[in-house]
Amino acid sequence: MKTQVAIIGAGPSGLLLGQLLSRQGIDNVILERKSGEYVLSRIRAGVLEQGMVDLLREAGVDARMNEEGLPHDGVELAFDNRRVRVDLAGLTGGKTVMVYGQTEVTRDLMEAREAIGGTTIYEADNVQPHDLETDAPYLTFEKDGETVRLDCDYVAGCDGFHGVSRQSIPKDRIREFEKIYPFGWLGLLADTPPVSDELIYARHERGFALCSMRSPTRSRYYVQVPLDEKVEEWSDERFWDELKRRLPEDVAAKLVTGPALEKSIAPLRSFVVEPMQYGKLFLVGDAAHIVPPTGAKGLNLAASDVNTLYRLLVKVYHKGRTDLIPNYSRTCLKRIWKAERFSWWMTSLLHKFSDEEGFETRMQQAELDYLTSSEAGLKTIAENYVGLPYESLE
Amino acid sequence: MKTQVAIIGAGPSGLLLGQLLSRQGIDNVILERKSGEYVLSRIRAGVLEQGMVDLLREAGVDARMNEEGLPHDGVELAFDNRRVRVDLAGLTGGKTVMVYGQTEVTRDLMEAREAIGGTTIYEADNVQPHDLETDAPYLTFEKDGETVRLDCDYVAGCDGFHGVSRQSIPKDRIREFEKIYPFGWLGLLADTPPVSDELIYARHERGFALCSMRSPTRSRYYVQVPLDEKVEEWSDERFWDELKRRLPEDVAAKLVTGPALEKSIAPLRSFVVEPMQYGKLFLVGDAAHIVPPTGAKGLNLAASDVNTLYRLLVKVYHKGRTDLIPNYSRTCLKRIWKAERFSWWMTSLLHKFSDEEGFETRMQQAELDYLTSSEAGLKTIAENYVGLPYESLE
Repeated sequence: MKTQVAIIGAGPSGLLLGQLLSRQGIDNVILERKSGEYVLSRIRAGVLEQGMVDLLREAGVDARMNEEGLPHDGVELAFDNRRVRVDLAGLTGGKTVMVYGQTEVTRDLMEAREAIGGTTIYEADNVQPHDLETDAPYLTFEKDGETVRLDCDYVAGCDGFHGVSRQSIPKDRIREFEKIYPFGWLGLLADTPPVSDELIYARHERGFALCSMRSPTRSRYYVQVPLDEKVEEWSDERFWDELKRRLPEDVAAKLVTGPALEKSIAPLRSFVVEPMQYGKLFLVGDAAHIVPPTGAKGLNLAASDVNTLYRLLVKVYHKGRTDLIPNYSRTCLKRIWKAERFSWWMTSLLHKFSDEEGFETRMQQAELDYLTSSEAGLKTIAENYVGLPYESLE
Repeated sequence: MKTQVAIIGAGPSGLLLGQLLSRQGIDNVILERKSGEYVLSRIRAGVLEQGMVDLLREAGVDARMNEEGLPHDGVELAFDNRRVRVDLAGLTGGKTVMVYGQTEVTRDLMEAREAIGGTTIYEADNVQPHDLETDAPYLTFEKDGETVRLDCDYVAGCDGFHGVSRQSIPKDRIREFEKIYPFGWLGLLADTPPVSDELIYARHERGFALCSMRSPTRSRYYVQVPLDEKVEEWSDERFWDELKRRLPEDVAAKLVTGPALEKSIAPLRSFVVEPMQYGKLFLVGDAAHIVPPTGAKGLNLAASDVNTLYRLLVKVYHKGRTDLIPNYSRTCLKRIWKAERFSWWMTSLLHKFSDEEGFETRMQQAELDYLTSSEAGLKTIAENYVGLPYESLE
């Protein structure tokens, strides 16, 4: 087999990149280790920055999102039994975010790819990149018991944190930065109406809580839990009780509970690899960086990498601008590090780090007190939350 | 002896409070453990917020400051061999700071107190507060070998971190919050023209550096050093060399060196006691809270406590508003915690915390990159640097 761009991973990044490239006449093949059903079953993020929304529109994959997505022009911070609204649109000159589940984005992208006859090979086992530092890179994989070779010009590594792409880079050619947080998020998905039209990020002495949603009838809630917590120890009732205790009373009183469709614990991690490129391989999204979920930057950062790689490859194939290739990593990382900072900062501000109320606790309280009494402070939250501008390749 | 307000400590807080009270006809006596010459020999801060400048004007102690003080409408952040100016005035609607040494403020206040015949008892040994929880508190002290008793209505504890005032409060009535930083500041005072008209706060991989000044002919420079560093190991030459290495090249090239008038190492500490009141005793300034010097908040916070206590006592003596007394601590702490946050944050942003370049280093770099590319980000620095508004007692 032969293609121009081989894409490893059929999650939203790989599918979006493939769709954008196909519309520009750039041939691509996507290899995915799992089945399409499995990919769709993963419950993930749901808040899209304007930049990602624009990119989905550019890819022509916005019809259902336009119908069903929920534009949000504000988010709320809750603390000390009160709420302060961050007026995203008012503070950023009209920018907003879109609540539309990652699962829905993935489904739309899969359908669009099928419609244009794009090649996605699911259940491709043991994908391995080869000769990445040469002008003739290729991938091998196993499909239905046979080994297949896929020759290509470039490889896009969209296969997530545990994927093969980053692992294909020699250890002495990259540098990893990591921070592990001493807690996780226990998430619950339920077909109940969201307690609020807008997301509520709550700091509480018992720990962080988040009220989010996927649609007007589907809610997603989270509570901070210790890292060694077991999900089996959390009945639905215990979850709802704990959530209510961490919310302002007026919010807790309105909370509609119901049976969990899904319940799971995720650890929180900050991770970045530098650089994000090795020969003909470009790392995209979670393959190169992870943020803690506070601030909803994970999927959006993947989209901004896709945006950078897509524009780079268009210039390479349509204008012969191979001179831009070395700029990929630097361009991505400039924006990524700022989003890593925002995610780390928002995590640090809102979570409980110690059982003792000490200096750090007072710092969190003072920071919330300052930020919510300062227009400039609120604006720093708003402009990061809606997403900082995309960086230019040149 | 008898007075209305007994003030412990003849540093700038005690003297300023005394002057303000005297001008309102409220009788006060200041007790100071050291001599006046000793007090004047202490080298301290030199950047005054507008609020403190206004308070000195209200006290009628502004003549020399108006002549010799240097109004600053900007400060600079230096990193990655470049400088970014924080336009204090432009970002805050015209607010500025005044560079005028604490030693000069103290001298002016001493002279003003002498001019109005205020009582300051220097070299008052073994000052001890008594019966603070009663309606008849008093102090005892030893002067020239004799024990003297000073009866009063209220006691203002302006005697600094190591003073007797805070130590007079039973341990179970207060709570202390503290953070010790793993480094100190080595400071050098020299009669050389400052390298820049404005202060330069520099982040460098070798550690933090600060270019400050006391006058157009007197400079004050600092470099971050390990806590166990000995000042004897720092020749003037070594200091100047190290400073130059941490500054942007264009700044280092302009630096005029000269013999040190003074050279010392100070540790960095964040400290707050809650509450700041016990019976008839009010803690003021360093007696209740310490900030690391990054951001120059120490003296200014003392002034804002003086402002609060002064206005409170005027209302007590002139309007009989003793009902406001319980508000003192809360009013002070609201502003103090925000300044503690700013000082901690600016310290965390600019200092070297580890020999290894890891995630935290990248967070510093990303934060500087973000802040200096965002007007809202710069404004959060500016509005804190010039000083947040004074809080109201009611």
